[in-house]
Amino acid sequence: MASSVTGLDEVVLDHGSGAKLSGELISFVVETLGEVYIGEMEDSAMLSVPAGRIAMTTDSFVADPPFFGNGDIGKISVCGTVNDLAVVGARPLYLTLGMILETGLPMALLHQVCTSIRETALEAGVQIVCGDTKVVRKGEVDQIYLNTAGIGVFERAPLRMRDVRPGDRVILSGPIGNHTVHLLSIREGLGFEQRVLSDCAPLNGLMDTLLTTVGEGTVHSVRDVTRGGLAAVLHEYARASGHAVRFEQERLPIQFETVMATDMLGINAIHAANEGCLCLFVDPAAEQDVLNVLRSHKYGAEATTIGEVTGDAEPLVLMRGADGRDSVVEELQGAELPRLC
Amino acid sequence: MASSVTGLDEVVLDHGSGAKLSGELISFVVETLGEVYIGEMEDSAMLSVPAGRIAMTTDSFVADPPFFGNGDIGKISVCGTVNDLAVVGARPLYLTLGMILETGLPMALLHQVCTSIRETALEAGVQIVCGDTKVVRKGEVDQIYLNTAGIGVFERAPLRMRDVRPGDRVILSGPIGNHTVHLLSIREGLGFEQRVLSDCAPLNGLMDTLLTTVGEGTVHSVRDVTRGGLAAVLHEYARASGHAVRFEQERLPIQFETVMATDMLGINAIHAANEGCLCLFVDPAAEQDVLNVLRSHKYGAEATTIGEVTGDAEPLVLMRGADGRDSVVEELQGAELPRLC
Repeated sequence: MASSVTGLDEVVLDHGSGAKLSGELISFVVETLGEVYIGEMEDSAMLSVPAGRIAMTTDSFVADPPFFGNGDIGKISVCGTVNDLAVVGARPLYLTLGMILETGLPMALLHQVCTSIRETALEAGVQIVCGDTKVVRKGEVDQIYLNTAGIGVFERAPLRMRDVRPGDRVILSGPIGNHTVHLLSIREGLGFEQRVLSDCAPLNGLMDTLLTTVGEGTVHSVRDVTRGGLAAVLHEYARASGHAVRFEQERLPIQFETVMATDMLGINAIHAANEGCLCLFVDPAAEQDVLNVLRSHKYGAEATTIGEVTGDAEPLVLMRGADGRDSVVEELQGAELPRLC
Repeated sequence: MASSVTGLDEVVLDHGSGAKLSGELISFVVETLGEVYIGEMEDSAMLSVPAGRIAMTTDSFVADPPFFGNGDIGKISVCGTVNDLAVVGARPLYLTLGMILETGLPMALLHQVCTSIRETALEAGVQIVCGDTKVVRKGEVDQIYLNTAGIGVFERAPLRMRDVRPGDRVILSGPIGNHTVHLLSIREGLGFEQRVLSDCAPLNGLMDTLLTTVGEGTVHSVRDVTRGGLAAVLHEYARASGHAVRFEQERLPIQFETVMATDMLGINAIHAANEGCLCLFVDPAAEQDVLNVLRSHKYGAEATTIGEVTGDAEPLVLMRGADGRDSVVEELQGAELPRLC
């Protein structure tokens, strides 16, 4: 696809010059974003916010491949930031969008990324308020990297890690491992990508439904399970609470094909990155209520309790096996799995 | 320099895994940023803002080389976003920081970048509220790219492009072309980099001094002169105002060595990127007051009037030569000068 604005089929160095072609590239992006873009073409966007506390976050996105079966880096770039705002209890409002483009990137792919950003922003109810495009020479970046930063407002008390306590139930909103398996399957040519899709989704609607329905103080803290996987999240909570967090191996929601693929890849789903899975710490008395609300939402249909915060005052992550025995889950140094988000 | 936290001399792939080494990389960055980092290690920062309008902006930074004579990409990343907030009349408050790091980047260079970010943020009076680090494989990015997004508050009326009007004086706060010459001189080995330094500077203090001193409504609109140079800024204002903007060639503030270097490089200083130069459109009655205030500040010592918005209802940029004749300055398609910021 040639840009209707520039007449060019691919990104060229002069698209990043700050001169006429830069303006045309920006027009191409802005037109594709459509109604979700509300910038004014000043050096900064001017926005209204209510007084009080806001949430602010940022993420850069370097997914490889940038285009995959049921999404692309554009979708991830909106979901990642929307989810980081949603899990602290904020309502996401505004996103910024930074793009670093490799010379030679087909305009058709840029169009696809911007279309995904548009559709995901529409679903999440957020607006893109300003952007920036940089073009680098061939080989100075791998196709396209994005950055989004976002702000949200607190309409209720913020959720913090420090508010987890012994007895809290640990709930996952959906299966783990699928995003990683989907991307690695494409990268390595394993053939699982048709049956295992990325879970990439904006979860602010799910969070809002949950927090609106259950009583204030019921949900103590939430994280989205991204890089580092469930294990990394649980280690953070163990450290933050000073208590051991235990989960039951048999209760982990993992799709059958994902088990096969992770076995083949030699990775463990508890270390796999996801893009649409929440890990919630909730009042045990409200466990069933929370599960019911989550399961009523399309992004929480497979929500399940996997464990609890124990009374042991040691910041460990424990896995209870089928035999009823606990083993310590060590924190990985790393996993040599770059660019999953 | 090996990281005191990780014991590693350079960035490795596992620094981006989300597991233990990621935590250590983040600790290294956070410790180096010191008191300017106020994040809470939740998924989003939680901030207080007064009710009303805020400004929000973002920029990605891909400067080549990332380390130069009197600065580095870290300094640029703070100045770029601070300046974009300042020129619309906002007081910059909070920045986010996204880093994309190439495997093998020496920790010493990452330390240098973070130190620059720290020092520049301290000078500008802004705080880093959250960050993100991604690590990509060797060759998937050129050393280090940064993104900052920022928000600021309006304590006075926003300044907008549409408020320029015929008769406005066009003032530059300092010389043009130096940042481009400095970086290109290092890149091409021209030997000018000792005598021509980058102008990279946070200009929110200069803007605040100016707007506090001169009466409300005196300064109509301001842009910082970055990619695309003065010519791009003047073209934007010509389009926004619907009037021709004219400058006098002889009044352009260009350092002698910069003239030599741009001649050698075959570029024109009016198209060169800067990182610490404002282009101001001001009420003609207040021209001298504005110049006096700008010149009283270290970043405006060489402020000078270069032209005016004419009464001609044509969106042109005109250059008046030494002979008193006007010529039309065409907008460049591009300049094939990548990665100056």
